[in-house]
Amino acid sequence: MSRFLKERYQALEAYTPGEQPRDMEYIKLNTNESPYPPAPAVVAAMNSGEIERLRLYSDPTAKGLKEALAELYSLSAEQIFLSNGSDDILNFAFMAYGQKGAIFPDITYGFYPVFAQLHGVEYQEIPLEPNFSVNYKAYLNQNKLIVIANPNAPTGMSIGLDAIEEILKSNPDGVVVIDEAYVDFGGKSCYKLIDRYENLLVVRTFSKSRCLAGGRLGYAFANAALIADLEKIKYSTNPYNINRLTLLLGKETAKADAYYTEKCGEIIKTRETTAQALEEMGFEVLPSDANFLFARHPKISGEQLYSELKKRGILVRHFTKERIKDFNRITIGTPKEMQTMISKIKEILL
Amino acid sequence: MSRFLKERYQALEAYTPGEQPRDMEYIKLNTNESPYPPAPAVVAAMNSGEIERLRLYSDPTAKGLKEALAELYSLSAEQIFLSNGSDDILNFAFMAYGQKGAIFPDITYGFYPVFAQLHGVEYQEIPLEPNFSVNYKAYLNQNKLIVIANPNAPTGMSIGLDAIEEILKSNPDGVVVIDEAYVDFGGKSCYKLIDRYENLLVVRTFSKSRCLAGGRLGYAFANAALIADLEKIKYSTNPYNINRLTLLLGKETAKADAYYTEKCGEIIKTRETTAQALEEMGFEVLPSDANFLFARHPKISGEQLYSELKKRGILVRHFTKERIKDFNRITIGTPKEMQTMISKIKEILL
Repeated sequence: MSRFLKERYQALEAYTPGEQPRDMEYIKLNTNESPYPPAPAVVAAMNSGEIERLRLYSDPTAKGLKEALAELYSLSAEQIFLSNGSDDILNFAFMAYGQKGAIFPDITYGFYPVFAQLHGVEYQEIPLEPNFSVNYKAYLNQNKLIVIANPNAPTGMSIGLDAIEEILKSNPDGVVVIDEAYVDFGGKSCYKLIDRYENLLVVRTFSKSRCLAGGRLGYAFANAALIADLEKIKYSTNPYNINRLTLLLGKETAKADAYYTEKCGEIIKTRETTAQALEEMGFEVLPSDANFLFARHPKISGEQLYSELKKRGILVRHFTKERIKDFNRITIGTPKEMQTMISKIKEILL
Repeated sequence: MSRFLKERYQALEAYTPGEQPRDMEYIKLNTNESPYPPAPAVVAAMNSGEIERLRLYSDPTAKGLKEALAELYSLSAEQIFLSNGSDDILNFAFMAYGQKGAIFPDITYGFYPVFAQLHGVEYQEIPLEPNFSVNYKAYLNQNKLIVIANPNAPTGMSIGLDAIEEILKSNPDGVVVIDEAYVDFGGKSCYKLIDRYENLLVVRTFSKSRCLAGGRLGYAFANAALIADLEKIKYSTNPYNINRLTLLLGKETAKADAYYTEKCGEIIKTRETTAQALEEMGFEVLPSDANFLFARHPKISGEQLYSELKKRGILVRHFTKERIKDFNRITIGTPKEMQTMISKIKEILL
């Protein structure tokens, strides 16, 4: 760190992404990527002409991709925002709407407190219930920036649309961000509520269910006024922030929806068989609507299980926060990868 | 705009990127893109396996690309920062180092005042000299954030390394950003000074001379402490902010340096013949070290020439700022594109 850095950032603790060790080939179950490649039509959309055209800037309005998403979700293009990953959108939301403070769960996506600190937003963390569900009543009548991941991470647990609607109604002067990064794996999306609630911002990503984590594409749904705010911030930081190829691949992805629905179905099936196998071994597994499981075992610490799996070539995500330090977050891979993991855990627990 | 948006952003005027009309095929000389495709080895690096691996996140440390650039420029990886376009890096620099205010020319990259306003940075714009050169003496002994594009845009004119060194020496408590977006077209880079001046941040891009505008890749050189600041801000906003394919293409680009040196040479040659042709038609053409020319004609307004060219299928960039409203900024295209433009201008001036 230099002596020139603005004071507020000196104390800031940046987000820690999942590790990417290169010392050996791992079964990577630590960053919630999809085990499946993008749809064949997406892979086929790439050709050398597209690489040659990288000499040209991307379309900053992202017109074609917005129209494809508008068609898929029966929205208008003015209700859609696109950016370089959903982290980018969450960052903009804290910038734009944090002036009266922010509220989010104590156990959730670890980036929320980082965004808040970065932008000098005061924040309050609401403890999850003893069963790790989001205590939605604590978010009523706050009129601040409310940020809820639904399904939540790293628990995988959801709250219902009725609870979200209560939060929206009781916070007419605060923006409510529902982070639906994992919604396609069994959650219920609230995006249709944007027509009725001007304070709702639904944030989503192509990184998980759309198999494009490396393509960097996030999107958001909201009424046109909120979208205009986000566009203004985007045009004041980095108007061409989405890669030209990604705009193309994103459009093909929107058109290949059936493929992704099928793959999400497979991941859900694998999640259920994996959860059952873990429970049979004595794990407590939280009920997940996401592409990961959050589980702990009474006889081995979270950190020890993580380390023993890593030694055996399997990466899962361990968090050091006191309340969840006995858990590990396990991304759902292919059935074969999960079988390998289960047999390694059996070996470790012997 | 919504009623929820933070007050400071409500008055903000976002940056206006060059237009991208789709009503017809234009000769695009308005956003300083390269007329040449990326090197053959870069185009060949893409294959369907790389698209399939987009399901995985990119390496947030960008290790391979940093090492390739370190080798090319004889630096250490700790002296290199990478981000999603140089706009991203400039944005971070205003965030990180603007607390005592900023200074930049009145005629320069139009994004600097937008970044300053976005982050609440007070700024002073120093008028260019009557001949449109940067008055470097005005930047001495300021100890604020100093931002100078060298070559400057939209003029194309450079200041010397001796002037930059004087600025660095006399501002020991302010970071000096030298924006070298256009340096490969005949300018002199100051990057070797990073070993001697801890306050120097050199910002560059793959968008112009590296033919990758649509790939979104910016880089910066500085001492390790400044780079650590920027990494911290990147890890607090969007750690995976560079596309996975772009990391690969960037690495191949660094290895294909001879190709790009040759193409820059061709662009310089075309620039010189174009400048001469314009001067023969009565234009005043500023001396350019960039991949564009900035020119005005005594008999036609800048706006009129811009409109007449657009009607004829040629896009150039016109700015409405009083002092430069008689000029147009003309990107250097292929020799054939420039001949077409020259003949259209002849037609317009008849």
